[in-house]
Amino acid sequence: MRAVITLTTDFGLADPFVGIMKGVILNLLPNAQIIDITHQIEPQNIRQAALALESAHPYFPENTVHLVVVDPGVGSARRPIAVKTKSAVFVGPDNGVLTPAIEPASRVYELTKSKFFLDAPSSTFHGRDVFAPAVAWIAKGTSLSQMGQKISDPCMLELPQPKIHKGTITGEIIVIDRFGNLISNISEDLLRTIQTDSMSLQIGRKHLRGLKSHYSQCKPKEIGCLINSWGKLEIFCREDNAANKLKCRVGTSLTIKKN
Amino acid sequence: MRAVITLTTDFGLADPFVGIMKGVILNLLPNAQIIDITHQIEPQNIRQAALALESAHPYFPENTVHLVVVDPGVGSARRPIAVKTKSAVFVGPDNGVLTPAIEPASRVYELTKSKFFLDAPSSTFHGRDVFAPAVAWIAKGTSLSQMGQKISDPCMLELPQPKIHKGTITGEIIVIDRFGNLISNISEDLLRTIQTDSMSLQIGRKHLRGLKSHYSQCKPKEIGCLINSWGKLEIFCREDNAANKLKCRVGTSLTIKKN
Amino acid sequence: MRAVITLTTDFGLADPFVGIMKGVILNLLPNAQIIDITHQIEPQNIRQAALALESAHPYFPENTVHLVVVDPGVGSARRPIAVKTKSAVFVGPDNGVLTPAIEPASRVYELTKSKFFLDAPSSTFHGRDVFAPAVAWIAKGTSLSQMGQKISDPCMLELPQPKIHKGTITGEIIVIDRFGNLISNISEDLLRTIQTDSMSLQIGRKHLRGLKSHYSQCKPKEIGCLINSWGKLEIFCREDNAANKLKCRVGTSLTIKKN
Repeated sequence: MRAVITLTTDFGLADPFVGIMKGVILNLLPNAQIIDITHQIEPQNIRQAALALESAHPYFPENTVHLVVVDPGVGSARRPIAVKTKSAVFVGPDNGVLTPAIEPASRVYELTKSKFFLDAPSSTFHGRDVFAPAVAWIAKGTSLSQMGQKISDPCMLELPQPKIHKGTITGEIIVIDRFGNLISNISEDLLRTIQTDSMSLQIGRKHLRGLKSHYSQCKPKEIGCLINSWGKLEIFCREDNAANKLKCRVGTSLTIKKN
Repeated sequence: MRAVITLTTDFGLADPFVGIMKGVILNLLPNAQIIDITHQIEPQNIRQAALALESAHPYFPENTVHLVVVDPGVGSARRPIAVKTKSAVFVGPDNGVLTPAIEPASRVYELTKSKFFLDAPSSTFHGRDVFAPAVAWIAKGTSLSQMGQKISDPCMLELPQPKIHKGTITGEIIVIDRFGNLISNISEDLLRTIQTDSMSLQIGRKHLRGLKSHYSQCKPKEIGCLINSWGKLEIFCREDNAANKLKCRVGTSLTIKKN
Repeated sequence: MRAVITLTTDFGLADPFVGIMKGVILNLLPNAQIIDITHQIEPQNIRQAALALESAHPYFPENTVHLVVVDPGVGSARRPIAVKTKSAVFVGPDNGVLTPAIEPASRVYELTKSKFFLDAPSSTFHGRDVFAPAVAWIAKGTSLSQMGQKISDPCMLELPQPKIHKGTITGEIIVIDRFGNLISNISEDLLRTIQTDSMSLQIGRKHLRGLKSHYSQCKPKEIGCLINSWGKLEIFCREDNAANKLKCRVGTSLTIKKN
C-alpha cells in the first residue's frame, strides 16, 4: 500500500517550489503517491486554503497525510503543527489553516524535533525545509509523539456563520469556483428549516425563487440556485458565470425568506 | 503493471475538484498512475476536450483508462458512458466528448449500475461521484458489461471538415496552442493532393507561400506554415505568437491554392 | 526503487503536450515517478528554465533524470544532449538550458541513436518524439554511451554576474516569484564581504537599510530584504507584492553599499 500525501499551497505552478517539495518527499519516501489539491490559493489566504482542505480531505484514503502550506508567518515563532484525526494526519503552520481537522477527538502536536527537518532550515521556505520532510516521515510511519509535543491551543480560524432571524437566513458567499458558481455558507440542513419549496433568495438586486435540483433545469444563461455536491446552497448561471453576471465576490451577503 | 488513468476536464487547477477525483480513485486503486491531460478546457467546451483527447490518447500505454469530464448536462438525463476500443477505455458523459474513441469497432456502454458509483451521487459533481469511481473500477479490471448495458446511439460530435472545390482547399483553425500556433483541420494527406511545393495560403489578409519543414526555417518574428507533429497544417510565427499577430481565433477560416 | 523523472517546459498546462510526454514515458517505464518542476516557463525563455532547474535539482533523489524542454530551435540542427553528473542525469536541447548541470566533472553526450526515439520524429515536438522516450530509456538504465557520443562543446548560457567596485555591489533581479518577491543574483557570500549589518540597498527610487532574517520582521506592506532560502539576496514586501510596488522586472538593477 502506497502512502498518499496531498499538497495544498499558495505557491502557484509557475515557480519550482511545488516540484522541489515533492523532490524532498521522494528522497525519504520514493514510493509516495503525491496528489495536488491546489497550489492556487491566493497568496496568504488562510481561509481559502482551510475551505479547500475541508472540501477535499473526506474523499482521500484512510491514513492520507495532508500538507497545507499557506504561511505568511514563515520564519517567525509560529509553530509547525501536525493534527491526528481518526482517519488522517494534517500538517501545516499553526495559523488556522488546519482548522477543518481540529475536532474534539483530534490530537495536535507541535513539530519540534529538528532531526525530521532538512539541515539548517531557511527562514523563508519551510514548505521545503520543514514541512515536506515532516510529512514524508509521518507517511513512513513515524509517530507524532516522536516528532514533537502535544499542544492544546492550536490556532483556530473563525469561519463566517449564517444567521437566522425571524424566519430570514442571512449568509454569505464563501467560495467562487472556476465556473463562477457562488457557494454560500448556508447548509441544506439550515435551509430545510424554512421549507424551501417556496423560498425566495436575494443576492444584490437579484431575486430567485425555489431550488433547482440540477443546472440543466435552468435555461442557458438563466440564474438559479441549488444544493450543491457538498450540501451547500449555490447560485449558478447555466453555461455561464454567475459571479460575473451578478458582480459578486467572496463575502457578498445573501438573504433567504420563506414565501 | 500499474493501471494508467488519464484525466481531461474543464475544472481548472484552482479549485480542489481534480484533487478530489484523484482521492476517490486512490480509495479504490491505491497504486493507480494518474496522469493529467489538461484541466484547462474552457468551461463546457466539449469540442475542445474532444480534440485534446484525440491528440493525446494514441501516446498512452495499452489499456489506459481515459476519463473526460466536460459535462454541462451534469445531473440531467444525459448518460454516463464508457467506450471500449481495441487499445483503451474511454469514460465520460454522453455529449460528444468521447467522439474520437467511437469507431466502428468500439463497444459503447451506458454505465447504469450505481454500485460502481459513490453512495447518493450529487447532481452537480459526477466527476467525483460517478466518473472517478467508475474509472477506478474499470482500471481494476471490472468488465463494462458488469457495469451497464451496451448502447448503439452514442452522441457524436461533428467536427468541421475542410472543403475542396476547383483546386482550392478551405479549412479552419480548430486549435490555438500556448505558443499562439494556429492548428487547422487540414491534414497533410489532403494538402498533398494539390502539390504543396508552390501552394499559396491565405488567412485573413496574410498570404504565405510554400511549406517550411521546421520553425527555424523562418526568421525570428516571421510567419510561416508547416505540417505539424500530428500531420496537420499549422501556421506559426517564429519565436512569437501567430494568433496575436494575425488576430486569429478558433474558427477563423483559411484557403489554400495551388499556384 | 522507482525511477524519478522531472519535467520542466514552456508548454503550459492548457494544451495536452505535457500529458502526452508522460504517456510516452509510461509506455517504456510504467512505474516511473514523474514530477513536474514547472511548465510555465515563458515561451522560449531558456534562461528562466535554466534558473528553475538550478534551484530545483539539488532537492531530488540521486539518479533522478531531469528533462528540460524549452526548445526554440526544435527541428533544426541543434543537438539533443544528455549530461551525466555525479548525482543525476539531465536531458534537453543543446541551447544552454542545461547549463546548471554542466560542471567540469560532467560528461555530455549528444543523443544520436534514433532507436531510442519514437519512429519518424516530427520536426516540431521533440518533447514527445525524442526527449520523452530518451529519458525513459535513461531512467530504465540505458547508458548514455549506448545512446550517442560524447561531446566537449555544449552550449553554455552566460548568466548575469554581480559586479563589485569600490565597495559597491551592483547586481540585478533574475527571478520574480509568484508572491512578487524579487530574487537577485547577489549571493550571501558576496554580500558578507561588505558587512551587511549596516548595508544600504537601492533599487529604483527605493532605499533599504540592513537585512531582515524573515518576512515577519517587517510590518504588513513594508518592504525589506533578506537572504532567501537559496542564499540569494531577496527584496520582499510583507504580505504584498514587491514587484508591483516597486515596478520591477527581471533585469532591474540594484546596488548595495556599506554604510
